[in-house]
Amino acid sequence: MSTDIAVDIAAKASHAAKAVANLTTEQKDFVLQSMANHIRSASETILAANADEVATASANGTSAAMLDRLTLTTERINAMAQAIEQIISLPDPVGATRQIERRPNGINIEKRRIALGVICMIYEARPNVTADAGALCFKSGNAVILRCGREAIQTSLAIAKAMQQALREHELPDEVISIVPDPDRDLMLSLLKQDNYIDLVIPRGGEGLIRFVTEHSRIPVIQHFKGVCHLYVDQSADLQMALELLLNGKVQRPGVCNALEGLLVNKYIAADFLPMVATALAKHDVIVHACKQSIGYFANAQAIADSDFGQEYLAPEIAIRVVDDLDAAMAHIDQFGSQHTEVICTADQANAERFIRQVDSAVVMHNASSRFSDGGELGLGAEIGISTSKLHAYGPMGLEALTTEKYVVTGNGQTRG
Amino acid sequence: MSTDIAVDIAAKASHAAKAVANLTTEQKDFVLQSMANHIRSASETILAANADEVATASANGTSAAMLDRLTLTTERINAMAQAIEQIISLPDPVGATRQIERRPNGINIEKRRIALGVICMIYEARPNVTADAGALCFKSGNAVILRCGREAIQTSLAIAKAMQQALREHELPDEVISIVPDPDRDLMLSLLKQDNYIDLVIPRGGEGLIRFVTEHSRIPVIQHFKGVCHLYVDQSADLQMALELLLNGKVQRPGVCNALEGLLVNKYIAADFLPMVATALAKHDVIVHACKQSIGYFANAQAIADSDFGQEYLAPEIAIRVVDDLDAAMAHIDQFGSQHTEVICTADQANAERFIRQVDSAVVMHNASSRFSDGGELGLGAEIGISTSKLHAYGPMGLEALTTEKYVVTGNGQTRG
Repeated sequence: MSTDIAVDIAAKASHAAKAVANLTTEQKDFVLQSMANHIRSASETILAANADEVATASANGTSAAMLDRLTLTTERINAMAQAIEQIISLPDPVGATRQIERRPNGINIEKRRIALGVICMIYEARPNVTADAGALCFKSGNAVILRCGREAIQTSLAIAKAMQQALREHELPDEVISIVPDPDRDLMLSLLKQDNYIDLVIPRGGEGLIRFVTEHSRIPVIQHFKGVCHLYVDQSADLQMALELLLNGKVQRPGVCNALEGLLVNKYIAADFLPMVATALAKHDVIVHACKQSIGYFANAQAIADSDFGQEYLAPEIAIRVVDDLDAAMAHIDQFGSQHTEVICTADQANAERFIRQVDSAVVMHNASSRFSDGGELGLGAEIGISTSKLHAYGPMGLEALTTEKYVVTGNGQTRG
Repeated sequence: MSTDIAVDIAAKASHAAKAVANLTTEQKDFVLQSMANHIRSASETILAANADEVATASANGTSAAMLDRLTLTTERINAMAQAIEQIISLPDPVGATRQIERRPNGINIEKRRIALGVICMIYEARPNVTADAGALCFKSGNAVILRCGREAIQTSLAIAKAMQQALREHELPDEVISIVPDPDRDLMLSLLKQDNYIDLVIPRGGEGLIRFVTEHSRIPVIQHFKGVCHLYVDQSADLQMALELLLNGKVQRPGVCNALEGLLVNKYIAADFLPMVATALAKHDVIVHACKQSIGYFANAQAIADSDFGQEYLAPEIAIRVVDDLDAAMAHIDQFGSQHTEVICTADQANAERFIRQVDSAVVMHNASSRFSDGGELGLGAEIGISTSKLHAYGPMGLEALTTEKYVVTGNGQTRG
């Protein structure tokens, strides 16, 4: 039963994908503007559906944070439409061609960028992801299947309906952007087996969700488990700069994946730097978990055992460790990092280069805040997800990560000898 | 039990991968030359192990084709060493950096190419894959776990031992190139769950093996199911050129995945072209499966129903269909193709461009033989596999496909506002 529904959803999306793959940039941008307009026009309908769902979620005792993410307002709907208008301004990756080689026999080899086909997004109760992901997948020439959390299905359906009106006006099938109307887990499992029709699965949510999807999917999955990001302050660091990077990384928005969770301090500067750190963190009420060598500098730090590093606090809370040198810092990151974002603060170019080369992380930074590790700040314009596994994409994923390249070979009758 | 062994193999490979990731190109090329030398020096040992395995396989009634692939000779061992020397001459993808953007706030964004980590190759009784895959993974900065068919394990161990001698001489761990010493299926299944340690699985073999691996793997799998390649001869084609492309694609080496399995002929030239085809294919004893509109041109063709197209003959055998126009040809390819290689022969640039843009295939060709669809012919130098699914790589995969890119962000203390 759930298999039949999954096959139907996936097959229709796959069929719809063919209609999008070869649209010109102008055509796609025109439809996207129409989507933004329809979302604005449908505000009342969307808000009504959302109000019902917020009431239900609230009655079911949903957490305040989740209710906040679920709740739409006129301003938030307008922001959704603006986000689509921003996607219009991004360059279209589809069709970009790069010359590879002209072979001695005269055949010419190029690679040309094409859409992936069908993307399946699995996410929680965030209605704005519906509009964002729908628009990003469309701009990159893909169809998308959106499977959101049960709390937000009616809101998502209302948003998708507005976008589908724009599709229809341009004679494109509704299934270019389809919503899974049923939160049934068996249906999700069946969707994850439709590797004949679906090209990529992007789960967004907690580590549990992503592990569950990875375990059950026969389709490639973009994995983004967590962000345990470190700042290593090297012997030659500008300590004032290091302090600013620390505060920006830990205090500015502690609940996000590119916030700092660990501070590593070179032992030669510990006596100078840690008192500065203690004063600054105390001012921001940051809870400190300190190693034996650093705990003495803090008034209220909790001791941390060597094996307890690597926590993702997502809160004003940080682990601090004094390390012997750059190699010890990199060994710590290798053991406790999450391949998300790692930062070195140093004036020593050779150390910076060694850190950049050797640290295995999707984003490696020198003298810049870990908070820059997202699609918008890295110049991608908008982000469909972040990959902390290396296949297909590594790090923040923009439109290009929703495409691949095919080989284009042209000749004048060449045959192989 | 098999899980413990799998964890041990995978963890050691993962550890070894770190030792390879940051070698310079010069260091890697030096070790590769040493591997080639050691393989030549170990000829006698390798041949002895191989002779035993060939005798066993022969006694077990193994097919002649498989025995041929399994059997090594001094010449074949030398060819293995030469293949490694050729890999030395290929450019090293690791470390290549491309500038992405300098942001208004002054941070600079680059992407830098890095190794994937650990590759697991699963293949059948082809000892030369052991040397090839070992060398390609090493050159691209990866460790590799080689799981070959039971018939060739001792031969592969002997080859790997020679390569490991080169590793040891340069103080690199044996596990940079490791052989799974046991053909046990449970062990393979356990390996396919080691997504903490293994980054990519590349199966090479029949469709059954690849589907089995895909179904059971928690690690991304490169899929190459089959090659059902078509030649579409358009209305404006140079018919002599089309005939040469057909013969080269079907007759030169019919048993390979880039051989032609289908010929689509535009109806307006059918009466001119099909008699030429009939004469030429008869001369090469090619079995013809013809549609209703073409069968009259052939003396001994077998009728084929519309639903029976899409066979991978891997033999001097071809399916022929007359189509109304370019769109009908593309619809046929969409239904029966395998996303491997598709060819159009035409003098009409607009039709060529439409075919190139719209046909969903890893390699699309205009006026060139499908037989050019392999790594060597496309200028990759050597091929680790072919992907007919779009994630990570699409089409023939060379050294670059064994790498990914990380973001490198450099600033002078910028923080996010």
